[in-house]
Amino acid sequence: MRPKIYLFGDSITEQSFGDGGWGAALANHFARTVDVVLRGYSGYNTRWAFKVFDRVFPAAESGGSEPPLAVTVFFGANDACLPDGYAAFQHVGVDEYKRNLHSIVSSLKNRWPKTLILLITPPPIDEDERLRHPYAENPSGLPERTNEAAGAYAKACVEAAGECGIPVVDLWTKMQQYPEWSKAFLSDGLHLTGEGNKVVFEEVMKKLNEGGISLGNLRVDLPALADIDHGDPLKAFQ
Amino acid sequence: MRPKIYLFGDSITEQSFGDGGWGAALANHFARTVDVVLRGYSGYNTRWAFKVFDRVFPAAESGGSEPPLAVTVFFGANDACLPDGYAAFQHVGVDEYKRNLHSIVSSLKNRWPKTLILLITPPPIDEDERLRHPYAENPSGLPERTNEAAGAYAKACVEAAGECGIPVVDLWTKMQQYPEWSKAFLSDGLHLTGEGNKVVFEEVMKKLNEGGISLGNLRVDLPALADIDHGDPLKAFQ
Repeated sequence: MRPKIYLFGDSITEQSFGDGGWGAALANHFARTVDVVLRGYSGYNTRWAFKVFDRVFPAAESGGSEPPLAVTVFFGANDACLPDGYAAFQHVGVDEYKRNLHSIVSSLKNRWPKTLILLITPPPIDEDERLRHPYAENPSGLPERTNEAAGAYAKACVEAAGECGIPVVDLWTKMQQYPEWSKAFLSDGLHLTGEGNKVVFEEVMKKLNEGGISLGNLRVDLPALADIDHGDPLKAFQ
Repeated sequence: MRPKIYLFGDSITEQSFGDGGWGAALANHFARTVDVVLRGYSGYNTRWAFKVFDRVFPAAESGGSEPPLAVTVFFGANDACLPDGYAAFQHVGVDEYKRNLHSIVSSLKNRWPKTLILLITPPPIDEDERLRHPYAENPSGLPERTNEAAGAYAKACVEAAGECGIPVVDLWTKMQQYPEWSKAFLSDGLHLTGEGNKVVFEEVMKKLNEGGISLGNLRVDLPALADIDHGDPLKAFQ
């Protein structure tokens, strides 16, 4: 059986197999070695994510399979919705957000002690763009998310990773190192463009590599064409 | 557990999670309902594919899981390599190709009687482009594949599907209905451009829909955001 990498997160994960998406890019990179399994749930915050944890990752006795190689945990964009904006029902306070991340990581570690768990912070927010692309009626004229709030959740996520001793991609900080980050990386002030997807893919790849998960260390599923003897092809399949 | 759709084929399947790829597009379309599982093996013909069948689809007793919803079987581009060209080691005669397709389909039907099995014919070939993009030294000055040969295999594939009573996407015929099919759909006279991937995606989607596999008939994995009560979100997760 091929090993798996699970992508667990919100809409930025659920949409990651769209054109140029970071999830599809991972699946393509590991095409002959790993199954990349999509577990993205649009709109979810860490409170809801933890509630459904056992349904997302069924225990071995109920049909769950081998320990995955890695799990990306990519939440916070919805937790960081402002508590008085139109998306307030998705809001989770930053302290609870951090506790929930700890709970999710602990549950993964308990189940699969050797699996690489990788946290990803929410991306930065472009507030003007959020006003141009609301996903519900917004008569207030105020954005439902701010970059400052997203930054506080990103900081909490980085701290949680440090406390758990696991790697983290600080997307909020990384993206803002580029001029024009909003236009380059965000399609609606929150979700990712092709270039934004590329940043996530490259940062996730770096952390997987650092954790020993790379093509050089993985078994290719069935003989590669280059290893098939032109004079006696069937030998490779015995 | 989410149901699965397996994509079983050669390089045109293995590369299907690349940018704009038909496999990624399927995974994206079914993001909350189905796991699309990549089982593409570059360079493989049906003889090799049948040899490895039990390793690609492990039987239930050795960790194989629930019957998949569907399996796409997309071979022929390598079988159709000319028997006297530089890729002759991949060649399989058209009669054996058809028998091998029958064997693969029978094995799938035996294992999973209710699974939708969908054959896909090889795409058309642009011989001039193949000479410009050889994948091995080719001093002969002749292409290793011809469109005529690919057409014979496509015809055999369509016949096999008819004999097995299963659906088929006749990609060879479909693509050539468009003027400029080579430039539009093929990147190197054989593999697919973004537009070519779109044709495969759309044709596969049609057949899945006709077989009753569509978002309207599938269970969404965990509550959709639209079904979550803003006043009492946790109710949806009880």
